Amino acid sequence: MSNIEAYLNDFNVDELIFDEIKDLGIIDYHNHLDPKEIYLDKPFENIGEMLLKTDHYKWRLMRAYGVDEKYITGSETTYKEKFEKFAEVVSTAYGNPIKKWLELELYTFFKIKTPLSKKTATRVWARANKYIKENRLSPRKCLKLTNVEYVATTDDVCDSLEYHAKIDDPDILVTPTFRTDMLMEFKDSSYLEKLENVSGVQIGGISSLEKALNERIRFFKSHKCSFSDIGIEHFPRRIAAREEADLTIKKLLAGEAIDSNAREGLQGYLYVFLGRAYYDNNIIMQIHIGALRNPNTRALETIGRDAGFDSVGDVIPIRALADILDQMGEKRPKAIIYTLNPAMYYPLITLCGSFPGCMPGIAWWFNDHERGIKEYLQAVSELSHIGVIPGMLTDSRSFLSFSRHTYFREILAEYLSSFYYDGEVNFDYYDIIKIAKDISYYNIKNLIGLK
Amino acid sequence: MSNIEAYLNDFNVDELIFDEIKDLGIIDYHNHLDPKEIYLDKPFENIGEMLLKTDHYKWRLMRAYGVDEKYITGSETTYKEKFEKFAEVVSTAYGNPIKKWLELELYTFFKIKTPLSKKTATRVWARANKYIKENRLSPRKCLKLTNVEYVATTDDVCDSLEYHAKIDDPDILVTPTFRTDMLMEFKDSSYLEKLENVSGVQIGGISSLEKALNERIRFFKSHKCSFSDIGIEHFPRRIAAREEADLTIKKLLAGEAIDSNAREGLQGYLYVFLGRAYYDNNIIMQIHIGALRNPNTRALETIGRDAGFDSVGDVIPIRALADILDQMGEKRPKAIIYTLNPAMYYPLITLCGSFPGCMPGIAWWFNDHERGIKEYLQAVSELSHIGVIPGMLTDSRSFLSFSRHTYFREILAEYLSSFYYDGEVNFDYYDIIKIAKDISYYNIKNLIGLK
Amino acid sequence: MSNIEAYLNDFNVDELIFDEIKDLGIIDYHNHLDPKEIYLDKPFENIGEMLLKTDHYKWRLMRAYGVDEKYITGSETTYKEKFEKFAEVVSTAYGNPIKKWLELELYTFFKIKTPLSKKTATRVWARANKYIKENRLSPRKCLKLTNVEYVATTDDVCDSLEYHAKIDDPDILVTPTFRTDMLMEFKDSSYLEKLENVSGVQIGGISSLEKALNERIRFFKSHKCSFSDIGIEHFPRRIAAREEADLTIKKLLAGEAIDSNAREGLQGYLYVFLGRAYYDNNIIMQIHIGALRNPNTRALETIGRDAGFDSVGDVIPIRALADILDQMGEKRPKAIIYTLNPAMYYPLITLCGSFPGCMPGIAWWFNDHERGIKEYLQAVSELSHIGVIPGMLTDSRSFLSFSRHTYFREILAEYLSSFYYDGEVNFDYYDIIKIAKDISYYNIKNLIGLK
Repeated sequence: MSNIEAYLNDFNVDELIFDEIKDLGIIDYHNHLDPKEIYLDKPFENIGEMLLKTDHYKWRLMRAYGVDEKYITGSETTYKEKFEKFAEVVSTAYGNPIKKWLELELYTFFKIKTPLSKKTATRVWARANKYIKENRLSPRKCLKLTNVEYVATTDDVCDSLEYHAKIDDPDILVTPTFRTDMLMEFKDSSYLEKLENVSGVQIGGISSLEKALNERIRFFKSHKCSFSDIGIEHFPRRIAAREEADLTIKKLLAGEAIDSNAREGLQGYLYVFLGRAYYDNNIIMQIHIGALRNPNTRALETIGRDAGFDSVGDVIPIRALADILDQMGEKRPKAIIYTLNPAMYYPLITLCGSFPGCMPGIAWWFNDHERGIKEYLQAVSELSHIGVIPGMLTDSRSFLSFSRHTYFREILAEYLSSFYYDGEVNFDYYDIIKIAKDISYYNIKNLIGLK
Repeated sequence: MSNIEAYLNDFNVDELIFDEIKDLGIIDYHNHLDPKEIYLDKPFENIGEMLLKTDHYKWRLMRAYGVDEKYITGSETTYKEKFEKFAEVVSTAYGNPIKKWLELELYTFFKIKTPLSKKTATRVWARANKYIKENRLSPRKCLKLTNVEYVATTDDVCDSLEYHAKIDDPDILVTPTFRTDMLMEFKDSSYLEKLENVSGVQIGGISSLEKALNERIRFFKSHKCSFSDIGIEHFPRRIAAREEADLTIKKLLAGEAIDSNAREGLQGYLYVFLGRAYYDNNIIMQIHIGALRNPNTRALETIGRDAGFDSVGDVIPIRALADILDQMGEKRPKAIIYTLNPAMYYPLITLCGSFPGCMPGIAWWFNDHERGIKEYLQAVSELSHIGVIPGMLTDSRSFLSFSRHTYFREILAEYLSSFYYDGEVNFDYYDIIKIAKDISYYNIKNLIGLK
Repeated sequence: MSNIEAYLNDFNVDELIFDEIKDLGIIDYHNHLDPKEIYLDKPFENIGEMLLKTDHYKWRLMRAYGVDEKYITGSETTYKEKFEKFAEVVSTAYGNPIKKWLELELYTFFKIKTPLSKKTATRVWARANKYIKENRLSPRKCLKLTNVEYVATTDDVCDSLEYHAKIDDPDILVTPTFRTDMLMEFKDSSYLEKLENVSGVQIGGISSLEKALNERIRFFKSHKCSFSDIGIEHFPRRIAAREEADLTIKKLLAGEAIDSNAREGLQGYLYVFLGRAYYDNNIIMQIHIGALRNPNTRALETIGRDAGFDSVGDVIPIRALADILDQMGEKRPKAIIYTLNPAMYYPLITLCGSFPGCMPGIAWWFNDHERGIKEYLQAVSELSHIGVIPGMLTDSRSFLSFSRHTYFREILAEYLSSFYYDGEVNFDYYDIIKIAKDISYYNIKNLIGLK
């Protein structure tokens, strides 16, 4: 106690807490990094590429400001031109987290404290690029600069995982996540054929499909996979019986069309089947709910997927989620369930409380800002126990985004310190410091079973 | 004015307001206490029993922390063991209202100011149990310690109300609430037969069912019933015509299966019929919307109902509620309508504004914490008139929960004081003190018509 | 910078910002004023008429307090009696924006600083009425007192716009809005016949209906219309193909009944058709989502429409809105989309981000209070770019409501100043002052293309 009390003469409690967590390692248990880029580890060319090549959060902000698409995703402009447009947009994007993230990115990776704006763009461009060259900034260099110990990428069921296998870095463990979105599309038999090829199991119905999936789970496990994930737009409202699922698979294989009702039933069946398989294989099940995918057809056709056109979808019927968790019965795996629609926090968090081992996932995507993170932390505190939640992840395609763990830890420290100021901390600071450390690092580490 | 201004030299306005309401009596107009326990008034054995025997709020918190069920509802552990586990869990449950409620419970009923934690559990256990014995703490003792004047329990339509009749205490009026959840299930004819028996009315169709229900309402009224209640999971989206309702009842009596559409129509019909009957009998209609009941089948089968596995359900179509209120026409009773899903506050509160005499119910169950209560008060202020709402109720199964009225009054005083600090109080403090008293006590007293 | 820094010695930043925007003109781009009243410009008789004749916000508040309808909309009471009741109700309506709006109204139009209450009602009544007479307060006088430059009323597709044509005031431009709610009802052929008459186009199917609508749009454009609007209760979930739409129109013309599915398809078709027509005619499309219309049938029959009985409706499926915007393709007009249900902000604001040129509309109706406006500003900041939104409108039927622009500007100034205090303003105050001015005035002026 005494050393902490000594601290208190000079520090605020939020600073005291932040000081204890800021240098903890980063376990980024869900993101969309490309393992090939991590493996190749090719140095970056300029800050424009680093900031703007893949980060659709920034693209959206530019579009909201009315910037012409050619300065966003267009191939006819240079990264320098894009960077200058972005500089103009971001400098007045008050209240948008991208503004604060950028400050962290500039300082963490380039040691630049100058705020980016139209006026400073040229100067920042030059200094950052000089820094990139001098320090040979590369994907893995970025990971190490931010103390990343563990990365879980997001990978299709049929992925070869060849780069996961090749990466051999003593400092960073790069693992795959078993993502079933493409499997669940069931537009025709093409994915089943692909699955047949990679699994070596001939698929003739539900039994052999299950066998093939089990085979793939084993393959992912052999690459140190600890997580599954699914985030299709439409959450299934019904669960087909096994016989119906079998029939639907057979129809697909026969080249027949299936209707949306049959597809939904099959999806529901597989949510349950896969959940039970994850339980058997000690995989933590992630479910992402409530993303509206590609509402703008023209943008999809001209610019593509994952280009900043997805948006927040509706709240789903909570009974649908309940039924799927319920049908897993004794074989319900540990689960982390995320919603993109904050109006769903109360149903989701309380439902998790009805299924021990299920946890509500951290403020996701559009909610990943100061107020949104606090809203999540507060709802979890009110409805559950703040001490046991898994913490921050980036969900990002950018190697710079790991500085957002610092953003999160600052917010977490401030949030937890409020309990001290409100008189809820009865004994000493160790309790809240322990919780801060657990949420930042240890809870997820223990959940995965890392040593 | 002058005495209040004198106060102001030493007090904050929130303390000034709280001081005026803290000792008002408690009218707990909706809870789940067992009238038999109130009648028998058997002294409690230990604090473990008092805190943990029936309070599923605390059970959920323990589950969220990962405590094994045997320490929660298991019969193989003692109350002492359960209490020790709970002590560990609650001491770091920052932001969960249970932590603050516990402080109030310990002080109000046991005069213990020591915060409960793993370290203090043994000490608190011993002191509390000594206090229980010395003071012969019992159900009614708890009610009197917290100044409870009026209790409305929740009772099935077919209940004998024998213990309500037997309780004869000059300090506390214990009244029944006409709760129609089991009536509305309509799985088969068994409930109709039960109703036939207790009402003495032979049921052959909708006319005689209505007669039997009117008979039961008269019986409840003769036991000083002032409230009805319903809180079934699925709020009816349609209202059957009388002929259809008659047919459905006849099918049920004939042992035929009815589909969910027929059931829903019948339920809708009865919501309207009962509303009009409540109007005729001067009963205040309560409707609870948005609870998801028993999503976890295994937990239901092994642990049972009302054991902390219910959760927050979806927002219901507001048109469905509107139609039911609308069809009551001139015979719409006074009503208090609660939602468990806070995303429904705006539709609900404004709809109440469209039906004079309908009031939105106080922050319910999972919303009954500091932020939730403030959110409710704020929404009601913004959309309606803060001065006329009925206030706090416990909705609880625990005799200790009445200390939560103090929790509510502290929050209310702080909330109302904000209008003073924001300059909205133009003349004097009496206006906000009057509102504080009205919300804490007089509004509901007048609504019931108590003297 | 130096003059601003000089200011800062004496001013708070929020006051500094407010000072820069308080005297900007008012562009009220959506309201329900009667152009005939603006044209006639008849002086008001008393403050009771001015406050209570048409303002259903105030009527609702009185009903919420339990005031008898005869003092609200009844013809058997005088405006003085109504005013006295209102005085009593409003003085304790803490947290309801009407209380703050009233303060602004009393000061802006009558130079009265005395807060209205039961005690002061007689005094305020006399002073205000004297002021009305002495200053000949009239509709246009009210507009000029609040510096209104531009008004967009809300007008049916078949409206003659005769008073828009007659109003010729160098200070105020009064323009119509193309409102399609009555067109979209499709209960029978009566509206189509009306449209036939005013457009001079004989309607025999979808082609001629489109021709008639284009004709009306041209007519509105010739009266300086810059906006369309629609706010029907049920947002269409499907979009009929042109053939189906044609068939439905022909059925209506033949006097046949159409079912709700056909009506919904036709509505969806016309949303898309009209959107494309607005694009061609440089009209900004407004969509209002989520009002529940006239839930109380008895109130509708005895008191009428727009009398304070509408309420907040459900969140609509965001995919339905997405599909309609998507089908407009290249011809999607600039759009401002409002939701009455705040639980829909996240889906709506992010969807707007997926359709460049679409903007989420300002906090609407029941959300138009301090917390609601801040919630909107914050959500827009988090999910979009705060600098480019169009600002305040009154949506009102009262000539006093323009003082609410001051209310909005105070809130905006305070909101924007928070970025200064949080350290987000990196360079100087000009950036946030510019944003404050843009939101208050210039963004909407530029959007309309006013000089």
